[in-house]
Amino acid sequence: MLFNITAKDKKTSARTAELELPHGKIDTPVFMPVGTNAAVKGLRHDSLDNIGFKIILANTYHLYLRPGEELINNFEGLHKFSNWNHNILTDSGGFQVFSLAPFRKIKEEGVYFRSHIDGSYHTLTPEKVVNIQKAFRSDIMMQLDVCTPPEITYKKALEALELTTRWAKRCKTEWLKEMPGYEGVLFGIVQGNFYEDLRKRSAEEIVELDLPGTAIGGLSVGEEYNVFKDYLSYTAALLPEEKPRYLMGIGTPEYILDAVENGIDLFDCVLPTRIARNGTVFTPEGTIALKKARFAESHEPIHEGCGCYTCQHYSKAYLRHLFKAGEMLGPMLASEHNLYFLNNMIKEIRQSIKEGKFAEYKSAFLSRYNSAGSTGKAS
Amino acid sequence: MLFNITAKDKKTSARTAELELPHGKIDTPVFMPVGTNAAVKGLRHDSLDNIGFKIILANTYHLYLRPGEELINNFEGLHKFSNWNHNILTDSGGFQVFSLAPFRKIKEEGVYFRSHIDGSYHTLTPEKVVNIQKAFRSDIMMQLDVCTPPEITYKKALEALELTTRWAKRCKTEWLKEMPGYEGVLFGIVQGNFYEDLRKRSAEEIVELDLPGTAIGGLSVGEEYNVFKDYLSYTAALLPEEKPRYLMGIGTPEYILDAVENGIDLFDCVLPTRIARNGTVFTPEGTIALKKARFAESHEPIHEGCGCYTCQHYSKAYLRHLFKAGEMLGPMLASEHNLYFLNNMIKEIRQSIKEGKFAEYKSAFLSRYNSAGSTGKAS
Repeated sequence: MLFNITAKDKKTSARTAELELPHGKIDTPVFMPVGTNAAVKGLRHDSLDNIGFKIILANTYHLYLRPGEELINNFEGLHKFSNWNHNILTDSGGFQVFSLAPFRKIKEEGVYFRSHIDGSYHTLTPEKVVNIQKAFRSDIMMQLDVCTPPEITYKKALEALELTTRWAKRCKTEWLKEMPGYEGVLFGIVQGNFYEDLRKRSAEEIVELDLPGTAIGGLSVGEEYNVFKDYLSYTAALLPEEKPRYLMGIGTPEYILDAVENGIDLFDCVLPTRIARNGTVFTPEGTIALKKARFAESHEPIHEGCGCYTCQHYSKAYLRHLFKAGEMLGPMLASEHNLYFLNNMIKEIRQSIKEGKFAEYKSAFLSRYNSAGSTGKAS
Repeated sequence: MLFNITAKDKKTSARTAELELPHGKIDTPVFMPVGTNAAVKGLRHDSLDNIGFKIILANTYHLYLRPGEELINNFEGLHKFSNWNHNILTDSGGFQVFSLAPFRKIKEEGVYFRSHIDGSYHTLTPEKVVNIQKAFRSDIMMQLDVCTPPEITYKKALEALELTTRWAKRCKTEWLKEMPGYEGVLFGIVQGNFYEDLRKRSAEEIVELDLPGTAIGGLSVGEEYNVFKDYLSYTAALLPEEKPRYLMGIGTPEYILDAVENGIDLFDCVLPTRIARNGTVFTPEGTIALKKARFAESHEPIHEGCGCYTCQHYSKAYLRHLFKAGEMLGPMLASEHNLYFLNNMIKEIRQSIKEGKFAEYKSAFLSRYNSAGSTGKAS
């Protein structure tokens, strides 16, 4: 893996870089669409490719349960299994265990849980998640960590971060065992909940391990926006500048701008495709809900000037009709628009950083994005 | 409209032709995918275009109820509304009134019914369905007819066909009223249930009206296969040779081959996309159900040698995984395959007719299609 910073903003921590991974080079900052089951909901791979995505995220928890790492290994990894020839980042599965499994118990050894699909019992250890992700041939794999919700006690937050560090070490040891032909990298995860000294301690311990990249976990987990911003900025500043930084689970334009401002290079979120399936789409003036009656007769695309397939071919009236009629094509076209919109925004962000104008870009974007007030927002 | 027969099979009534419609020329025999709400389920219009479809069917009943003909007229028709630049055939809505509406009553004037969406009361008259289809700018519009189920009495079948003829005359009168810029054509529909003399009488009365094309209605409505074949062959022979013949509502390979053999030029069916959404796909050896465990580890495409996007890019193991995981991409890719398969079959059929080998083609196709027996069939 090579990480080459190509431009730095003067007023903020924003930067652009080139990240060389086993399946090609990507320009950062970058938004990664989520393909939970090795499929981004509603888009064919060639659509993702045409938009310009060079990396997607897949969920280890889901793919471990179904179809299982053995089958994926028989296909020599996720890329060949799903026929996606660019990069794939996989999470460790830990977050989904905490959010989806009907039962889980954390022990020193690992996490014990029951499948949300069939109730079967499973164990994920740090070593096991590394080996699953090796079977996946993940270009970036994540360590097993303990993600905590807001408002837990200091003691619990401390225990979670300490265990996260011990698991990071075990993941590193397992990752370092060579696997011929595989060159994916391991990222550590900073936890520490919403306690500054714990964030600091976690960052020091994870950075100490000298892994190829660092992620910030446990943010955007239900805390208030100002708390998110404070902890993002506090934590990001603790991470080494020369390595890629990944903020897990964010994907609204506002959060992306905050992340970039604080020197984050990678982020992912299900939000753009999830809201699209319900008919909510991004525009430079904020999100709009396509089902609203006021679009019933609109001959205009979602956003005049948008270069996406949907905006190039369809009116809001037709899109609204598709959603009202429950046609699959509605979610398909709305998802494509939302991903195109975010990718295009990221391209503009990179350009603004190169031109030393990121702060101006952010300010202008947000001013326009929030301009329509409640009438321009999805409810 | 021009209809130019380009080849005739010697042993059967099969023929190829060119049909010139307002939105371009199509080669017949042709299979028309069904886009109930002006959208073929699971496929973008560019995918339909890439496969080679030059005509799709849309349902007047659905589009009349939602979004309504006034809105579609404001877009100057369905083509611009849905951004489909090739031809569109619309049915009259009558069949859906009989199959979907929770209440309907047939009177001389027209059909009275309640919407299956919101229970609202509506009336469709022969004049009204013509004007709705004019608002749609349908390239081929269908008359309002009375479609009857198998096993009704002779008296009821007679009444239905007589009313169908009277409605055909009223449709013709309304269709002949000029609408500047609109050049779509009206097809009449032969009814007569499963009584040979009534089929003959209906055909004579409809043919007498000298409309641009003739459809056979009231077949493939639940009758046994042999009854279908007998009445198809009996009725098709009663239709003028020099005009296009349309068999409504058929779309399995077996029924398509029977239709072509009897000189049918157009057919449509929801079946290829409906079964695809459930994971059932066509192969030259019969249909297969992708969810079956035996495909779990298959590196092979649905059908080796198939030129569709799905078969060119994905294994059965990945497709099965998508269906097991409930990913939208599964229905999308399976629908694309099934429509490609039928369109490719139709191309081969046209070629076989031109080479005077249709009977051989049919026999070879069916022999292979039925070769796998129950193991090759979807259950």
